Amino acid sequence: MANKLRLGIPKGSLQDATIALFERAGWRIYANGRSYFPTIDDAEIECMLIRAQEMSRYVEKGVLDAGLTGIDWVVESGLDVESVTSLVYSKQSRQKVRWVLAVPEDSPYQKAEDLAGKVIATELVEVSKRYFAAKNVDVKVEFSWGATEVKPPTLADAIVEVTETGSSLRANRLRIIDTVMESETRLIANRSAYADTWKKHKIDSLALMLNAAISAQGQVGLILNVEKVNLPAVLSVLPALNSPTVSELSDRNWVALNTILEEGVVREVIPRLKAAKATGIVEYPLNKVVL
Amino acid sequence: MANKLRLGIPKGSLQDATIALFERAGWRIYANGRSYFPTIDDAEIECMLIRAQEMSRYVEKGVLDAGLTGIDWVVESGLDVESVTSLVYSKQSRQKVRWVLAVPEDSPYQKAEDLAGKVIATELVEVSKRYFAAKNVDVKVEFSWGATEVKPPTLADAIVEVTETGSSLRANRLRIIDTVMESETRLIANRSAYADTWKKHKIDSLALMLNAAISAQGQVGLILNVEKVNLPAVLSVLPALNSPTVSELSDRNWVALNTILEEGVVREVIPRLKAAKATGIVEYPLNKVVL
Amino acid sequence: MANKLRLGIPKGSLQDATIALFERAGWRIYANGRSYFPTIDDAEIECMLIRAQEMSRYVEKGVLDAGLTGIDWVVESGLDVESVTSLVYSKQSRQKVRWVLAVPEDSPYQKAEDLAGKVIATELVEVSKRYFAAKNVDVKVEFSWGATEVKPPTLADAIVEVTETGSSLRANRLRIIDTVMESETRLIANRSAYADTWKKHKIDSLALMLNAAISAQGQVGLILNVEKVNLPAVLSVLPALNSPTVSELSDRNWVALNTILEEGVVREVIPRLKAAKATGIVEYPLNKVVL
Amino acid sequence: MANKLRLGIPKGSLQDATIALFERAGWRIYANGRSYFPTIDDAEIECMLIRAQEMSRYVEKGVLDAGLTGIDWVVESGLDVESVTSLVYSKQSRQKVRWVLAVPEDSPYQKAEDLAGKVIATELVEVSKRYFAAKNVDVKVEFSWGATEVKPPTLADAIVEVTETGSSLRANRLRIIDTVMESETRLIANRSAYADTWKKHKIDSLALMLNAAISAQGQVGLILNVEKVNLPAVLSVLPALNSPTVSELSDRNWVALNTILEEGVVREVIPRLKAAKATGIVEYPLNKVVL
Amino acid sequence: MANKLRLGIPKGSLQDATIALFERAGWRIYANGRSYFPTIDDAEIECMLIRAQEMSRYVEKGVLDAGLTGIDWVVESGLDVESVTSLVYSKQSRQKVRWVLAVPEDSPYQKAEDLAGKVIATELVEVSKRYFAAKNVDVKVEFSWGATEVKPPTLADAIVEVTETGSSLRANRLRIIDTVMESETRLIANRSAYADTWKKHKIDSLALMLNAAISAQGQVGLILNVEKVNLPAVLSVLPALNSPTVSELSDRNWVALNTILEEGVVREVIPRLKAAKATGIVEYPLNKVVL
Amino acid sequence: MANKLRLGIPKGSLQDATIALFERAGWRIYANGRSYFPTIDDAEIECMLIRAQEMSRYVEKGVLDAGLTGIDWVVESGLDVESVTSLVYSKQSRQKVRWVLAVPEDSPYQKAEDLAGKVIATELVEVSKRYFAAKNVDVKVEFSWGATEVKPPTLADAIVEVTETGSSLRANRLRIIDTVMESETRLIANRSAYADTWKKHKIDSLALMLNAAISAQGQVGLILNVEKVNLPAVLSVLPALNSPTVSELSDRNWVALNTILEEGVVREVIPRLKAAKATGIVEYPLNKVVL
Repeated sequence: MANKLRLGIPKGSLQDATIALFERAGWRIYANGRSYFPTIDDAEIECMLIRAQEMSRYVEKGVLDAGLTGIDWVVESGLDVESVTSLVYSKQSRQKVRWVLAVPEDSPYQKAEDLAGKVIATELVEVSKRYFAAKNVDVKVEFSWGATEVKPPTLADAIVEVTETGSSLRANRLRIIDTVMESETRLIANRSAYADTWKKHKIDSLALMLNAAISAQGQVGLILNVEKVNLPAVLSVLPALNSPTVSELSDRNWVALNTILEEGVVREVIPRLKAAKATGIVEYPLNKVVL
Repeated sequence: MANKLRLGIPKGSLQDATIALFERAGWRIYANGRSYFPTIDDAEIECMLIRAQEMSRYVEKGVLDAGLTGIDWVVESGLDVESVTSLVYSKQSRQKVRWVLAVPEDSPYQKAEDLAGKVIATELVEVSKRYFAAKNVDVKVEFSWGATEVKPPTLADAIVEVTETGSSLRANRLRIIDTVMESETRLIANRSAYADTWKKHKIDSLALMLNAAISAQGQVGLILNVEKVNLPAVLSVLPALNSPTVSELSDRNWVALNTILEEGVVREVIPRLKAAKATGIVEYPLNKVVL
Repeated sequence: MANKLRLGIPKGSLQDATIALFERAGWRIYANGRSYFPTIDDAEIECMLIRAQEMSRYVEKGVLDAGLTGIDWVVESGLDVESVTSLVYSKQSRQKVRWVLAVPEDSPYQKAEDLAGKVIATELVEVSKRYFAAKNVDVKVEFSWGATEVKPPTLADAIVEVTETGSSLRANRLRIIDTVMESETRLIANRSAYADTWKKHKIDSLALMLNAAISAQGQVGLILNVEKVNLPAVLSVLPALNSPTVSELSDRNWVALNTILEEGVVREVIPRLKAAKATGIVEYPLNKVVL
Repeated sequence: MANKLRLGIPKGSLQDATIALFERAGWRIYANGRSYFPTIDDAEIECMLIRAQEMSRYVEKGVLDAGLTGIDWVVESGLDVESVTSLVYSKQSRQKVRWVLAVPEDSPYQKAEDLAGKVIATELVEVSKRYFAAKNVDVKVEFSWGATEVKPPTLADAIVEVTETGSSLRANRLRIIDTVMESETRLIANRSAYADTWKKHKIDSLALMLNAAISAQGQVGLILNVEKVNLPAVLSVLPALNSPTVSELSDRNWVALNTILEEGVVREVIPRLKAAKATGIVEYPLNKVVL
Repeated sequence: MANKLRLGIPKGSLQDATIALFERAGWRIYANGRSYFPTIDDAEIECMLIRAQEMSRYVEKGVLDAGLTGIDWVVESGLDVESVTSLVYSKQSRQKVRWVLAVPEDSPYQKAEDLAGKVIATELVEVSKRYFAAKNVDVKVEFSWGATEVKPPTLADAIVEVTETGSSLRANRLRIIDTVMESETRLIANRSAYADTWKKHKIDSLALMLNAAISAQGQVGLILNVEKVNLPAVLSVLPALNSPTVSELSDRNWVALNTILEEGVVREVIPRLKAAKATGIVEYPLNKVVL
Repeated sequence: MANKLRLGIPKGSLQDATIALFERAGWRIYANGRSYFPTIDDAEIECMLIRAQEMSRYVEKGVLDAGLTGIDWVVESGLDVESVTSLVYSKQSRQKVRWVLAVPEDSPYQKAEDLAGKVIATELVEVSKRYFAAKNVDVKVEFSWGATEVKPPTLADAIVEVTETGSSLRANRLRIIDTVMESETRLIANRSAYADTWKKHKIDSLALMLNAAISAQGQVGLILNVEKVNLPAVLSVLPALNSPTVSELSDRNWVALNTILEEGVVREVIPRLKAAKATGIVEYPLNKVVL
């Protein structure tokens, strides 16, 4: 199909967050009730809602040119696709998620090797099998439809389950004994689609803008004035990561600084800036950031 | 465990409707955030939230004494449990649901036999395999994580999918060519739990009250007065199913009737009752019905 | 069209109340977004949403067989339709509404005749013209698109406006000097449709059931027991309108009464019933009442 | 004021539940934004919103003829008013609430006497003082504006606090060592107003109807048919509290029973009724009950 | 009235969007329930809610000094008012709306002239009459209260109806055969009020600020740094409409650009800016824009 | 406690506004249902919810290091705490609130002295006593639990009540005759905690950031370009309070201005800026302002 990118959007728990991310990046996606084909305000893109677990299959077979899904499900599928960029935008936290091996709190198991001959329940069957195979531990891995945390000890001896903070595992009295894999959302592409010049350009623009919107979410802009004599002190207070833009003012003894800061450090940086004699400090919100 | 019934509640799409049904039947279930163990206002019951797909496994292994789930998932599991009663309470309609074999509208396939050698996508893998095996048709049945309707023709040649009205299949331009199985919600029990006198009594009381609440939902009470001379005409208008209670009035020429009617026929029955000279016709709502 | 009743539902302020009334009467109407043709769960009826002002025109021309609208708009149109029944179900009150002639509080006008040569603003142009013509008062009646209450004295000398309680007129400092017409909702029918046996029967059933639902809304059922010796005292307390059903009990000295009461009088009747030695007094809700 | 009852409605946490109770009892109260004088659809009543703590003062001084408030605040005020009836309608539970003496979980205090010389924080200052005085224990009782549970041990040694289930006390690691007083909502009246015939009649009617609505909330109606030969068995299953109404049917071998049951026992009674061969068992909802 | 501007706000479908626009422009308007006189936080303005259809009449007669309404209703009224500025802020799209001549899809009519002798239903009676008169086509134009799309072919042969996208016409199986007039929202003023210096200044300030808020809604700010050697390449990527502000940095080899962009082009411009070696690209939101 | 600041958050009417203010200042506070100890995303702070009336007591006793409360309750308590900064962020207005002495509209009282021997109802007992004592007026001050406005004349002769606009007093037909005290929210600190270097630094940082967020709420940023020849005219239009940042552009004849404005004056300033030949005027939102 000429000049048309077929793009997979993950259906289910990530769907709303994904549509919100695209809106911040500059694309409006409209979900139409129960249809699998949401509309998008870009004539060069066609969207399709697909479960994250099956995304890599659609992309690998070329039904889709690109799609968003977790790297866990890409690895689980064992299929060969291009990983264009990582996109960390889940609402709850901005950390990566982990698939962990967990056992009942009061069980004797301390490491994977202790589980030889046991039953492991998980939604991530293939990755779990490879994990134990790599350790030469012989276990029975059973597919779980969900609510995996309640299975031990009656229906399973241990589980391989996804977690961000571990709180759900603790609430079910489970103890983590190893990390099986880390995961995060990825923009993936079909290998031959990504070899096509037009499609590669379109996919790369998408990746750029999605990341621009992600960056802006946790950052803010800061403008301030500083007398040149105080500039070194002020600069020493700013995080080294991004060098600020220093511009000339009509009053030649002063300069203006414009910089980007992580939202979480502002409450510590502003008091230090004021102590270093910065004035006219103004924090303003950002839509997109490309450094 | 003595005098304690372990009961499985289906987690997910049926969960809210199930909790509402229990409330109408006389039990309040309180879901506690993300816990799998909701509380219930009956000291003789312990609840657990389990995906419908795994309910029969928990019941068969005796982790639970009884549970509510679809008969489709019981058959899929191939496990041996007691089916205590059917419970038809899904919100949208009160019909049974069907798992159907569907193909693209414009495909040449007219019957299961036309699909020899083809790929069938479904969430109900084992039932589908048995269906084709019984017809001696050799197909490849692949597990689908959902959104099965969009797979033909690129990722599957046909699908086995659940439907109530067929509207979602039509919207995805699929044509039904056979019914693979009918399903409905069931209260199932572990065979040895159901052999225990106390547990059987408790399960049977649950079944009775749940059905009493289900019956009441689609029915209403009707009271009316009728002169004895008009009684045959009035009785002939009432549906034959439930005979009304006829009680004596102080005025010996009249009787009062009290009966239960399907809500859907009231709009036709009341005009006929009035034509048959019934008076003082009053319709009132019901909470529970045990005929 | 054989065995199909085309029914007009008033679009706008009465729409939701009308759909709710039909549900209580036994018919579910589903509005479909912006479509003018809602679906209904009765294969013998086709619905159409029409503004109340234009209903009589659609019914008179036979585009619709029957419809619900205010008698004010029927009279305004001057068209000849059958008025099948009145239906008083507006939410705010159960009184009729009135179109009144109102003038500024501090104006000298006391009666219609004082307005000779003046400008009258109203949405009900034809009825207003006839009202003044019948009194031989020459005025200029101007059509108003709404917000008629704010027009005097700059854009009109007086208005003819609809009101239930008069509070909106008072808030705009207007004084009522006459009632031009009273109005209420009516079920109207096309004359030739109403001459057709099947359609007449269908329309009359609708009228019966809509009124049954309206009656039930403001009434409740009351059951009580009374010793025969106290029966006259108890009966004297009950409103004379509906005679109660008196039924025989196994205890021959007692009877049971079952009756229907206006909801608004219950708080006065129950204390008197108790004083008259009634026992086991129970009030229960009603869905429909046909006396 | 002739033929006008001035009635106090408790402002604050009980306000919505009180207005809902009056609606079920037959009176609609309309709160008007921030006004202290809600309107009511009864020309013989004038309402005023007053904090429960001050209700008995308004009633004792004759500013109000009657009002609803907790007996705790009546006793706290030490004022002389008529207690007309108790009204137990709080949403969470239908138990009485208790003011308890509580100390830190890990403190050595076991009884009131152990607190001699200590500081007691409470909102119920006078009642607490009298409690300790009656035991001849000398303590310092300090008024608390709320959040009393967090004061021990830094700002108080013990507290006197209201509780229904004790869960909030446990959450703040406090231990109950005594009950200071039980409380519940009461309808109270001014003594001279209650001596006036018209006002007494009006207040008693209110008390009757409010209790009728409260009774109905936790009860349901049950109708059933039973062959006379099975009547003793069926009657033995019904709770002894309310004897059912037994009425004669046209079929002389059968009778119909109509009775009122606590909602909470229905799930146990219906299975027993069926076992005792009752048929046509129907449960219906109630608005008001006066036995 | 000295130093007081009487301003009409369109009541009905545009009301909420208008109040939101004023808030973005710097004025808060508070609608007071059913009053026609909302308050505004500017002592120099008095607001009045008026239906768009009647706005030009109030403004022409001098009851209002200025008001917002559609140019369609101004032309329909035939009255002489000053058109101060156009204001395109409707939510759905930012295109102008059109009044079109539409006929049933399967009718033979292809142009206005084919409708000679036919009935045309419309809410815009006078404009429609003039349209046909200008073409010397004799038709009967009838006023429609709404739902005009369902009138053909039974109650009208063609309609003149307002549309943004044509989707409602298509849904009712109508075909557009001509555009009768284009419309958009306007700020209009009374001619003599606009001749008053103080009122003209106030109206012009309103026009300026309303347009400043409208401009900001669809635009964003963009800041970026660029090495002077790359400046021509970067500038060539930016839309020619608004020239960016180029400011000097302390590092003399670099400049900073600050510019305003249409929100819809950002997703194309940022990738090109990055390709042209711009750095530190930041997009920020705007409240108002006056270029 | 080392490196841990114990901070009191006012429970009740100010709670949500306070949590929202902290979020804008850079701290997220999570209220946990009914717990008095909300969590905060700063490991150096521990929060506690305390009623405003008791805050100074907790701070003075050292249970808390610092807290937010009204200066009225600080003065009422008579306790000695450090007042770190005022924080004016109540939603309704940004004015200070006043405790006023009010009497019935039609009473003869004109000044405090006229109330000798009378009863004064108030929630602010100690402050009121001191107010009258300072004037040598002997009155009886009674504690009121709320709804103080309805007490005169039956339960009190006058009241001391808090008000922002006086509208509630007027609605209850009361007349203000004096201001007893002005109040506003304050960040207060325990004297010895504020003497600790680490705690003082932490409290001062909090004060700085809370004020930065408060300032930003009512202000906006304004950027504009101006030819140097027009600079004096443009500068004369800007409020004198904050001098704008003037920066050099590549085009040496022009400068760019960046300034902060009160939101309320923007609608007057922008038209004047345009008249003074400023171009490219852009208003943007702010998160925090420290001048």
